[in-house]
Amino acid sequence: MRVLGIDPGSRITGYGLVEQHGSRLVHLDNGAIFTDKANGFPDRLKLIFEGLSRVISEFSPDVVAVEDVYVSENVRAALKLGQARGVAIAAAVHAGLPVFEYTASQVKQAVVGQGRAGKDQVQKMVKALLGLPEIAQADASDAVAVAICHINSYQLRLQAGPAVAISRRASSWRNYKP
Amino acid sequence: MRVLGIDPGSRITGYGLVEQHGSRLVHLDNGAIFTDKANGFPDRLKLIFEGLSRVISEFSPDVVAVEDVYVSENVRAALKLGQARGVAIAAAVHAGLPVFEYTASQVKQAVVGQGRAGKDQVQKMVKALLGLPEIAQADASDAVAVAICHINSYQLRLQAGPAVAISRRASSWRNYKP
Repeated sequence: MRVLGIDPGSRITGYGLVEQHGSRLVHLDNGAIFTDKANGFPDRLKLIFEGLSRVISEFSPDVVAVEDVYVSENVRAALKLGQARGVAIAAAVHAGLPVFEYTASQVKQAVVGQGRAGKDQVQKMVKALLGLPEIAQADASDAVAVAICHINSYQLRLQAGPAVAISRRASSWRNYKP
Repeated sequence: MRVLGIDPGSRITGYGLVEQHGSRLVHLDNGAIFTDKANGFPDRLKLIFEGLSRVISEFSPDVVAVEDVYVSENVRAALKLGQARGVAIAAAVHAGLPVFEYTASQVKQAVVGQGRAGKDQVQKMVKALLGLPEIAQADASDAVAVAICHINSYQLRLQAGPAVAISRRASSWRNYKP
């Protein structure tokens, strides 16, 4: 199973590709799509859609996992973030891929084993799990984390059946050794 | 010039197609894409993307005009609305179409001649301008209105050059007789 994780944002959209080989996680690629504030908003959304469509056609993932974005108190920001997330999901469904959503705490739980883990801990654990020397960009690292979260949840779903809550599934990330 | 106007929403996305023939406005089609709350949110976004893509391939508009959505105080609602708007814009840019944004008050100014006009006035004027007996659905009517707003603004941009502010352009909607 090859998973494209996406951490959407109107300024920076991170992506990460992780493949499951038996009980191993294999990192394929990660990166970020930067949009210039100088461009109009529809042009920035276009860049995100086209960038992700390119990633999808290059790597042919089986499934897309998207972080259920953090909602700040700022309505304007939420609206921008929502649009970025909308085009990211559009790129996935346009390619015929199923989309799964995970909250930030589900991702942290899956990767660090603790729903309230800090961003630093998530980044360190992502590197350790995949045996990577470095992930240059924070949003790319978050995207890789949500891909790992999906693989973890999916495997546990297979083992335990659909009735098990995600919060209980997610703690067994330690099964995966890079 | 054939314009697809879109009034995006996660529950109902209205669309309207209006063509400019000289100084006349010709109505081609209007409708709405309904998404079922029983479906998952990515599935609802998929419906919007696919529905609008079908409309675009059927009518081949030259340009897309989208209402710059009203932002309520509710962050959750803004995030949903943003995602619906994001997929709508993604459908347009995926088809290679330029996207123009208009605020609600620009649309009202263009259609009714008054930025603070009520929804009823806009609907009545849309019907009158296009010589329509009825537009069944409020969001479809709003979508037709934003298409009219674009045609109006575009023509005035041609006449007056790019330096004229939209708020000053928009008042001459009366040029257009259905």
